[in-house]
Amino acid sequence: MSENKEWTPASSREASAPGQPLSSLVWKGNHLSMLDQRLLPETIVMLDLFTTEEVWEGIHAMKVRGAPAIGMAAAYGVVLGAISYRGNDSAGWLEHVHAVCGHLATSRPTAVNLFWALDRMKKRAGELVTEAEVSQIEDWNAGLEREAIAIQAEDEEVCRQIGIHALPLFEDGMGVLTHCNAGGLATAKYGTALAPMYLAQENGIHLKVFADETRPVLQGARLTAFELQQAGIDVTLLCDNMAGMVMSKGWVQAVIVGTDRVAANGDVANKIGTYSLAVLAKAHGIPFYVASPLSTIDLQTATGADIPIEERSAEEVTESFGKRTAPEGIKVYNPAFDVTPHKYITAIITEKGIVQAPFSENLTALFAD
Amino acid sequence: MSENKEWTPASSREASAPGQPLSSLVWKGNHLSMLDQRLLPETIVMLDLFTTEEVWEGIHAMKVRGAPAIGMAAAYGVVLGAISYRGNDSAGWLEHVHAVCGHLATSRPTAVNLFWALDRMKKRAGELVTEAEVSQIEDWNAGLEREAIAIQAEDEEVCRQIGIHALPLFEDGMGVLTHCNAGGLATAKYGTALAPMYLAQENGIHLKVFADETRPVLQGARLTAFELQQAGIDVTLLCDNMAGMVMSKGWVQAVIVGTDRVAANGDVANKIGTYSLAVLAKAHGIPFYVASPLSTIDLQTATGADIPIEERSAEEVTESFGKRTAPEGIKVYNPAFDVTPHKYITAIITEKGIVQAPFSENLTALFAD
Repeated sequence: MSENKEWTPASSREASAPGQPLSSLVWKGNHLSMLDQRLLPETIVMLDLFTTEEVWEGIHAMKVRGAPAIGMAAAYGVVLGAISYRGNDSAGWLEHVHAVCGHLATSRPTAVNLFWALDRMKKRAGELVTEAEVSQIEDWNAGLEREAIAIQAEDEEVCRQIGIHALPLFEDGMGVLTHCNAGGLATAKYGTALAPMYLAQENGIHLKVFADETRPVLQGARLTAFELQQAGIDVTLLCDNMAGMVMSKGWVQAVIVGTDRVAANGDVANKIGTYSLAVLAKAHGIPFYVASPLSTIDLQTATGADIPIEERSAEEVTESFGKRTAPEGIKVYNPAFDVTPHKYITAIITEKGIVQAPFSENLTALFAD
Repeated sequence: MSENKEWTPASSREASAPGQPLSSLVWKGNHLSMLDQRLLPETIVMLDLFTTEEVWEGIHAMKVRGAPAIGMAAAYGVVLGAISYRGNDSAGWLEHVHAVCGHLATSRPTAVNLFWALDRMKKRAGELVTEAEVSQIEDWNAGLEREAIAIQAEDEEVCRQIGIHALPLFEDGMGVLTHCNAGGLATAKYGTALAPMYLAQENGIHLKVFADETRPVLQGARLTAFELQQAGIDVTLLCDNMAGMVMSKGWVQAVIVGTDRVAANGDVANKIGTYSLAVLAKAHGIPFYVASPLSTIDLQTATGADIPIEERSAEEVTESFGKRTAPEGIKVYNPAFDVTPHKYITAIITEKGIVQAPFSENLTALFAD
């Protein structure tokens, strides 16, 4: 893979470039440069990943996180796996690519973008080996590389479209609460839930953002507060348990979150704590929006009850601040996600427009168009 | 003050005594031994406080916390202040004691037990100087010492009575969720919200306790999880934002919390996050109980809107665990408490029985009895 294939739109600038937004993933032609988001905001480190296994570990250990970014990373992981194939037959290559995809699919269970991206890469691999004009393994590998690059490029445009569709929902001076990080760091650029905030800023509309810190991994404190502050957007950090009080004070006119998977009936899996926020928003008469690319909507999953919820280690809760904050041996329940039933959701904002209830019909219609 | 005046019921055993529950405050005759709760669960340190100023700092810096324990600490702070008086006239002594009380009242603004204990000490001081048979300053000081010791002894009995009244609300096998620490460490013994759990255990009833970790200071993770684990009670630690999900799974049949002040209309100030929990409990049809000694009920405060809510430093959220978890310069909103309107409260459990709506009438009647 030659250097001139490196994809360099705005979102792929070096993470360390001064004054520029950080990019969580930069394809370097023969390896993937991955921002280690676990070390933010104190330390900015780009990891150079040369193998599928390193990408698997990067996803599993949450060095990269955010549903769209996980999908992009996995796509590049497929490319790195394909490059490593040492045979020269199409059947063996295709089998190898499928095996690579199968392995990457085990890295995290909840975000559907992971499976979406792997399916897209498998489909493209199948096309490549049957296309007459493409007959060399290195051409097949180059085809997969172009597909991964396209996934990343499309994500930036998808996020921008989500922001454009969401923008009319936000007025100058509004208070907006968000949870976890569904921002530029979770995607190619703009983010999903944060896209309207960036587009509002581009249009001279000032929003007052409240960012839940989002225990246990503190993506809100470390990532959302960081990237909005970097962009000069008014942001106030809260502990998760303060959201209800802030709502009761009348400071919040909208809640907007990202998602890791939307079921066919409109139920939404997202970072743990999202469900509590949705119940609180409803109790306060505050609209609750979910920003979601179509790639995160899974019509094959009937309801939220069918979404597997990843449980993570006790240590993530008891020792994530650098010192132990709970007694040794304590039992911990640590689900990474929860499911918000569609009845709590005012609208799902996609790159193709705003979807409201009845979600089952309207989500299906979105894909039928 | 001689050594034989040292008060030594069960709750005053040395904090470091093996196999015994920790005591947060132990009066040592000429100084107050205070458990530094900020260092739990990793480190057990008893601080020896010899001056009012040291007690003020202990309360202000949350070395001691929990509304009843704050009141007890303040009472001993008055004793230490009285001892330091160098005159020999009753008017000067009384004025000095009032000044000491005035200073201690500035240590924290929300917990009404602080003001309750200081008022009780001032009242006792006034009685002492007018009692014919008590005419020496050292007798007056001894009288204040006995009053402080009585406050602590009475608190243990009050907590036990709260537990006894609450016990019929809990059945074997029930899931009970609590927030912050209203346990033995917050009181003389048993705690308020945790009293029914200890009494259930004494009566062979097994409860499954869920403890919110309670950001930002993590009293749930560091103190509640610790003291219940030490006592052999089944406890599972949660991040605050997981409570809604745990409720939705049907694992919780009751929520019980302590309080820092109950207003005359039944509104309750308690650790930040309590309000969110109450809204979530109502949405799930789960009873929401507040355990409160009469000393925490303030009929002089009409409603929750009249309770001053302490705001604490940004650093408590951004760097309280030894490493920075949010970007430098980020705005933070950090209220230490919130107010739960009485409409969300199923019952307030006191040492004189269970109070239900209408709270205005029933709380007043409680004091009229």
